[in-house]
Amino acid sequence: MNSTQRIARDIESLGVISEIQGIGCTRYTYTKEFKEARDYIIAQMKEAGLNVREDAVGSIIGRLEGTDPGLPIIMTGSHFDTVKTGGRFDGAAGVVAALETARRFHEEGFKPRRSIEFVALPEEEGARFGGGLFASRAMCGQLYPNEVFERKDANGITMAEAMKDYGLDPAKTDDAIRTDGQLGMFLELHIEQGPVLEKEGIDVGLVEAIVGLECYVLKIHGRSDHAGNTPMNMRADTMLAAAKAITAATEKAIELQEGTVVTFGRVETIPGAFNIVAKETELSIDCRSKTLENVHAVIDTLKASLEQSIRENPGLSYELTRTLDADPVLSNEYAMELMEKLAGEEGLSCRRMLSGAGHDAMIMASKCPVAMIFVPSKEGRSHVPEEWTDYDQLEKGARLLYRCVKELAMDEDSTR
Amino acid sequence: MNSTQRIARDIESLGVISEIQGIGCTRYTYTKEFKEARDYIIAQMKEAGLNVREDAVGSIIGRLEGTDPGLPIIMTGSHFDTVKTGGRFDGAAGVVAALETARRFHEEGFKPRRSIEFVALPEEEGARFGGGLFASRAMCGQLYPNEVFERKDANGITMAEAMKDYGLDPAKTDDAIRTDGQLGMFLELHIEQGPVLEKEGIDVGLVEAIVGLECYVLKIHGRSDHAGNTPMNMRADTMLAAAKAITAATEKAIELQEGTVVTFGRVETIPGAFNIVAKETELSIDCRSKTLENVHAVIDTLKASLEQSIRENPGLSYELTRTLDADPVLSNEYAMELMEKLAGEEGLSCRRMLSGAGHDAMIMASKCPVAMIFVPSKEGRSHVPEEWTDYDQLEKGARLLYRCVKELAMDEDSTR
Repeated sequence: MNSTQRIARDIESLGVISEIQGIGCTRYTYTKEFKEARDYIIAQMKEAGLNVREDAVGSIIGRLEGTDPGLPIIMTGSHFDTVKTGGRFDGAAGVVAALETARRFHEEGFKPRRSIEFVALPEEEGARFGGGLFASRAMCGQLYPNEVFERKDANGITMAEAMKDYGLDPAKTDDAIRTDGQLGMFLELHIEQGPVLEKEGIDVGLVEAIVGLECYVLKIHGRSDHAGNTPMNMRADTMLAAAKAITAATEKAIELQEGTVVTFGRVETIPGAFNIVAKETELSIDCRSKTLENVHAVIDTLKASLEQSIRENPGLSYELTRTLDADPVLSNEYAMELMEKLAGEEGLSCRRMLSGAGHDAMIMASKCPVAMIFVPSKEGRSHVPEEWTDYDQLEKGARLLYRCVKELAMDEDSTR
Repeated sequence: MNSTQRIARDIESLGVISEIQGIGCTRYTYTKEFKEARDYIIAQMKEAGLNVREDAVGSIIGRLEGTDPGLPIIMTGSHFDTVKTGGRFDGAAGVVAALETARRFHEEGFKPRRSIEFVALPEEEGARFGGGLFASRAMCGQLYPNEVFERKDANGITMAEAMKDYGLDPAKTDDAIRTDGQLGMFLELHIEQGPVLEKEGIDVGLVEAIVGLECYVLKIHGRSDHAGNTPMNMRADTMLAAAKAITAATEKAIELQEGTVVTFGRVETIPGAFNIVAKETELSIDCRSKTLENVHAVIDTLKASLEQSIRENPGLSYELTRTLDADPVLSNEYAMELMEKLAGEEGLSCRRMLSGAGHDAMIMASKCPVAMIFVPSKEGRSHVPEEWTDYDQLEKGARLLYRCVKELAMDEDSTR
């Protein structure tokens, strides 16, 4: 089998394990399907000559020992849990690319200078227990106190109970923490989950940054008035104020560029009757960009629009509550340039781009430099059964990962 | 007692009858409270020397016989049902103004040339059976086939059953129909249910037209995309298209004047998650104006905005479904000018205005010329327990009604 065929076999094997009544892929952390996937991944790692262990939260770590134990190690991989009825590629693509890299090294008898750890991580999605980015947070010492004892799945089973059943000791999650300086680089291949690479016909995306984001809930307060008897200039119409703010903030995001996006995914009016002016409108705001300055500029534009509406009608007021925020994470420039060079050597088209979604690499950035490779997503779709990446596209990304890990693993510069 | 005191006594008597646990006024058609109100109104009419009967649907008609039976009659009154936990004035104000007019005529021994009918109508709100404007539709022959046998209240009681219990024969609703040419004018005093008269400090509003209206449900179809991974220019964001359309249509309504109002009272996004671009946005549109041309201009502006959004992103589409429409109803110009003259004589400030809500007068316009007098609503509020009109404000409106009915009842022009 060639590389593409092995990649296809891995994706299909993992996919079949987790198919529920033929619909998509559901592989919740620490479940029966998850155990079967673990067994498959461990078997593949062993076959690739890796020294396999699981850390204290169930991250599978296949290690290829380097010749210079003093150098920080290279780590690559992704997560192997999925959302409910998601696709076969989200997470698995990066695990499979790591497996294929290990297999190629094994075939070649490659002896790296630095040790390499190929990893498959649980609970990135947080679909079962709600604790997203769990395994990378465990490695980076970012679990909350008692997190595994407090998080429960939909059936009331705590994460700790599920860990015991899986063969882990929930009291020992701190053992997963990696000591500072131990890691030299974390590389993650992932599907784009967006439409850009496919639309532009580009082989691989080099993620120069995972965007920063701020999410808010905006409540606009006004007055319920009769839709017929209240002239436009005597209203405190919260939906109109919302519409103007949405339009203004969106125009600002488009103007700013740099991957700035703003989304108003949930909008609700109260009382919600066709013939009553909405006395309250509540909406969600999700704004992301390469820089938080851009995010703040969008939010400031939104506020300015609301203030303008209030000046025009003093009966309006608003509350803006931040519900989520994350700083942007920049990829390692050395790795980016290396990947650009290697992509050129492999004849792969590539472009720098942003990741609009969070990934384990975002957390790992607190321990070491990171970089990410994106492969195209068919129609940009993800978290649905239709999620798809052609196997030869995935092979191209995996090949770039293989070349990059190989170069980095021979790098003598111990400051990286 | 002077006129204001009698008006206050009527409003309070009717209000106390229908108070439920001290909260507002609930007087559903054909209920126990409704019967008590009927008894009160009939007693007042008889005391004012009127010849009282009830028509086939329970409209109370107190008649003062004119000296010239060949002339079309003058009718005045309003409804005496209420919404759930509504106020004491909506409907009752016009009934009480009619009662007071009859009492003044009785005191004066006024002998009109035309006969005058003072009326109190059931089921204008439709709060119990859902059949709004019922009694005026019955008078104008606009009931639907089998309407009283099919409409049910929340307890499953049909209108027909309730009518029987009330002492009416539900098979005879056609008997309520007034023959063409019988009615010369219908005059209705009503509370404004809006803020204009109070804000402008004006005594009475002369309703020059009841607005025309069109209501729609707009569904915008687009695509669910990840809020992080989808650049702004690759989205089919239905909420953004909705926000632009709402803003554009509102600006058009403001520009058009002539009482044009547009309301987007209900807005919902699907799937309604903060981090997913809304693939569908559904909203209600309620547009009213003095002319349907204005309404159409607003809807056309809305459509043009949507078409522009579709040009910018072909992933969008929309469906616009009309759910309600009504032609504007113009008041009788002769009556308007007469009322302006009489208001001047009484030292009352007045202005022409539109009614944004429907009233029985709107239906009666199919039988005869109509005109309406509005009295101020405190803070524009209606259909709530706080609904209020000062008794001396109501007396001013009732006085104008009295003067107007008196003039019209002496009018010899049989073409009116």
